[in-house]
Amino acid sequence: MKVFTKKSPKEEKNPDWAPWRQKMHEIIFEHYTFWGKEFDVILLWAIFLSIVAVMLESVESIRVKHGELLRFIEWGFTIAFTLEYIARILSVRKPIYYITSFYGIVDLLAILPTYLSIFFAGGQYLMVIRTFRLLRVFRILKLARFLGESRLLQAALKASRYKITVFFGAVVIIVTVMGTLMYLVEGPENGFKSIPVSVYWAIVTLTTVGYGDIAPQTFLGQALASIIMLLGYAIIAVPTGIVTSEITQASMEKRKNNVCDHCSAEGHDIDAKYCRNCGAKFNNPEYPA
Amino acid sequence: MKVFTKKSPKEEKNPDWAPWRQKMHEIIFEHYTFWGKEFDVILLWAIFLSIVAVMLESVESIRVKHGELLRFIEWGFTIAFTLEYIARILSVRKPIYYITSFYGIVDLLAILPTYLSIFFAGGQYLMVIRTFRLLRVFRILKLARFLGESRLLQAALKASRYKITVFFGAVVIIVTVMGTLMYLVEGPENGFKSIPVSVYWAIVTLTTVGYGDIAPQTFLGQALASIIMLLGYAIIAVPTGIVTSEITQASMEKRKNNVCDHCSAEGHDIDAKYCRNCGAKFNNPEYPA
Amino acid sequence: MKVFTKKSPKEEKNPDWAPWRQKMHEIIFEHYTFWGKEFDVILLWAIFLSIVAVMLESVESIRVKHGELLRFIEWGFTIAFTLEYIARILSVRKPIYYITSFYGIVDLLAILPTYLSIFFAGGQYLMVIRTFRLLRVFRILKLARFLGESRLLQAALKASRYKITVFFGAVVIIVTVMGTLMYLVEGPENGFKSIPVSVYWAIVTLTTVGYGDIAPQTFLGQALASIIMLLGYAIIAVPTGIVTSEITQASMEKRKNNVCDHCSAEGHDIDAKYCRNCGAKFNNPEYPA
Amino acid sequence: MKVFTKKSPKEEKNPDWAPWRQKMHEIIFEHYTFWGKEFDVILLWAIFLSIVAVMLESVESIRVKHGELLRFIEWGFTIAFTLEYIARILSVRKPIYYITSFYGIVDLLAILPTYLSIFFAGGQYLMVIRTFRLLRVFRILKLARFLGESRLLQAALKASRYKITVFFGAVVIIVTVMGTLMYLVEGPENGFKSIPVSVYWAIVTLTTVGYGDIAPQTFLGQALASIIMLLGYAIIAVPTGIVTSEITQASMEKRKNNVCDHCSAEGHDIDAKYCRNCGAKFNNPEYPA
Repeated sequence: MKVFTKKSPKEEKNPDWAPWRQKMHEIIFEHYTFWGKEFDVILLWAIFLSIVAVMLESVESIRVKHGELLRFIEWGFTIAFTLEYIARILSVRKPIYYITSFYGIVDLLAILPTYLSIFFAGGQYLMVIRTFRLLRVFRILKLARFLGESRLLQAALKASRYKITVFFGAVVIIVTVMGTLMYLVEGPENGFKSIPVSVYWAIVTLTTVGYGDIAPQTFLGQALASIIMLLGYAIIAVPTGIVTSEITQASMEKRKNNVCDHCSAEGHDIDAKYCRNCGAKFNNPEYPA
Repeated sequence: MKVFTKKSPKEEKNPDWAPWRQKMHEIIFEHYTFWGKEFDVILLWAIFLSIVAVMLESVESIRVKHGELLRFIEWGFTIAFTLEYIARILSVRKPIYYITSFYGIVDLLAILPTYLSIFFAGGQYLMVIRTFRLLRVFRILKLARFLGESRLLQAALKASRYKITVFFGAVVIIVTVMGTLMYLVEGPENGFKSIPVSVYWAIVTLTTVGYGDIAPQTFLGQALASIIMLLGYAIIAVPTGIVTSEITQASMEKRKNNVCDHCSAEGHDIDAKYCRNCGAKFNNPEYPA
Repeated sequence: MKVFTKKSPKEEKNPDWAPWRQKMHEIIFEHYTFWGKEFDVILLWAIFLSIVAVMLESVESIRVKHGELLRFIEWGFTIAFTLEYIARILSVRKPIYYITSFYGIVDLLAILPTYLSIFFAGGQYLMVIRTFRLLRVFRILKLARFLGESRLLQAALKASRYKITVFFGAVVIIVTVMGTLMYLVEGPENGFKSIPVSVYWAIVTLTTVGYGDIAPQTFLGQALASIIMLLGYAIIAVPTGIVTSEITQASMEKRKNNVCDHCSAEGHDIDAKYCRNCGAKFNNPEYPA
Repeated sequence: MKVFTKKSPKEEKNPDWAPWRQKMHEIIFEHYTFWGKEFDVILLWAIFLSIVAVMLESVESIRVKHGELLRFIEWGFTIAFTLEYIARILSVRKPIYYITSFYGIVDLLAILPTYLSIFFAGGQYLMVIRTFRLLRVFRILKLARFLGESRLLQAALKASRYKITVFFGAVVIIVTVMGTLMYLVEGPENGFKSIPVSVYWAIVTLTTVGYGDIAPQTFLGQALASIIMLLGYAIIAVPTGIVTSEITQASMEKRKNNVCDHCSAEGHDIDAKYCRNCGAKFNNPEYPA
């Protein structure tokens, strides 16, 4: 009854490969060897720094001063990420699976904009090119790869998906009806220019964001707005209740399912290191000692 | 012990009817035949598109350009919904039950405003007519018909209704007392023009919306406002706690009540497709395979 | 094991009293006889209407037009509430207990301001007198008397009082430290005029109210503000978790404690009308059939 | 099985010390003797008053009038806290442990700025010195010492730390991607001056703070903002669910662990004073009778 040592099928290596390819696969996709870990940490920093560079370039005063340097750094990261992309394709058994996977597409989108900026370099298109280049910020999505703790949350959210859909359906109906009523009550002269704008205002109010760029002026409008606010204040309880209920149940079941390999005792805490019944050490790579 | 195959009484057909009426009833009110499903999907899209048309018409720039087209679309949908309304009356056993039901009234309100706009067409009443026409946005309420997943939420909310009433009573008392105090402290010269306006401000603050169109200027006013904010920040916990508690209990009971028809084993997940004890397939139309 | 028919000691009548006093006590303090119920409903409406009158008087345009009428209504309600206050004193065994109780003081505060406005009628003090009169809005606190469902909530909040104190202590520390840091970073020139004002801004931000009358302008200020916002967004989970946990446990225990008078079966729902074991009818006046 | 009378090791005294040192240790670090309690209460007030003095000094109008007095009070508190700091060092067995502990550093930081203001007194550095002096507001962190009820909360938060990290990772990704999209959609001309500013706006919106100093103007921008708001409104449920689940479980386990010294009966409430089985009085110093 091996619980903690299960190996996910996608991590299996191809036994017919050359040793360097097996090694490369190990470094890029495995996380438990020394170099596998180092690779992940370095990649994480590279992604983070490349995003910081893109962000700094968007600041007017910094672009004027250090524009050359930032573009140089940008090209450095783009070439590094391109080499990484090629290495990933070489080190998986079925490259087409990787290329068409979510992370394969994100990895490609993270390097494309810089290359595209060469071909679309003519005068008036400069702003459009910047648009493409800015898309590289999606590199941050790669970060998600390093977050492996999210399975319990995902299970809880998946179990709640029907109830959450019903909840959002109700929210959409409320903001549409309320937005229309506010358009009728306040009208374009008080900032409620059209029904879509009024619905936007209703969302701003129901979610308790409240920018204040549009605010009701008439007595009836303020009374209606109060109802929306109290509604928004109260119904936040519904998704919270749904998710809490699911997390509590998922967490209780996970605890029940943590079984000792040695004596089959159940109910260990998720980060337990020894069996509470026989004292056998757990082989649990996710929670390092 | 049939649990999943129970049929609700309102879906029963009248055996004395002509076959076309039975067929029509099946298409309009049943959801499990091919055409019954198609009808629902088409109706959903029609409602959605008609609401989009109403919304677009309220945007100044679009109304000037495409006003004629939008009014044509509007009349098309109105006639289609009128035919649907008549078909619904014809295909139920007791039409009066349908007409006086919540959805019967909503269906009628969804088509009336367009017809009313013919009779009240004289010059200066145009704006008033538009008001009636905008009511058609209530068509969106029809969407609720397609949300069948909401029973657990409804049970949880119903069980909490006394506690939620107490909570809202407390909120009303807090905003009235606090609004009055702020009117005394800040006064009309700082934007707190009257007690009703101050109570409105207290609601904006307690629900953490915070438009900022009215904001305390004096030291005492800011201190009082801080208390309201911290109160609002803390007591949101109360409805959340109530609803979470009810959902957890309702969800646990629902899980307990899913009984296998074959071996009477209890405790199946709400979306289980096979009995976890004997492997018998569940006949559960709510969760399609 | 009588559970639902227990009588609270404060509702007991004095057997030595004259019948009219016993009757008066029954009408004013009991809720289960016909006139006891009627009295409560009428009082509720009187309180509500008197508060509406005070609110309307604070609106400039209404005061100018209907000032005389509103002052007449105000005096009517004040006299009625005075008679009610005297009747309450006459119909309780130990008047001093009532007078010094929370509701005794509120009842007195609800009538005093109008009388005080006679003696302090000289020219320049008029505004101060209005201040006293506005205190009558506290009459709304009387409403709390009619909310009897709040015991479960009170038990849950009482059980959480230590944890909630710790939570508010942490909030006070966070807003003081963060407010001071923001004063140092942004300074008086960006609206953070003094530490108290900066602490007020930190409360506005942490509780996610966000008026926007004061907002950080520098990069460092916006970074710090982001930390406060994310903190505020996350730690709202703490009071919610505390209260939810207590309500769930209190609610489970309450359910366990609902015992049938006839067969002693436990675990009935709070609004059950019949015993789930022997079918005996419950005598539960709080949940009317 | 002594549960309530356990003594934490850091509170043990050194038996080889002189009696006056033992007494001093008792007063400063113990809380159950008369003078130990008095010392804590006086220290609490001193910290509170010194922070109020710093705050008042930052208010322009008060500094002009009472600047001399406030500086005198400041020096008084600084000298008192210095003596307290020396007394603490003298009365612990290993002073280096205290000095390098969190509270040791905070205690030092709370007195240093006032002394530093002597040496850096030259003209143009005055503002910088004030910066140091304002750091004394960190004295408020000392308050945390008096909050001993927070262990359950800490345990719950510690158990949730992995899940909360995943949650904050997701929030960071969302605000970065959404902030960049908004920069592309709205651009510098609508207030979204750079990507960092747009990310700041995304945090303001996702956390439902909503200052309104930056607000989307275009239709596409308002649609995107609506998505961020609804996301922020919904995902608040996740940390709440995590913390609630942990608190419920920690709270249930704590209840289970309160064992009677006399008869070993389990399951006592956390603030029970007598065993519910044998009636033995609990020796529980944390909850005074």
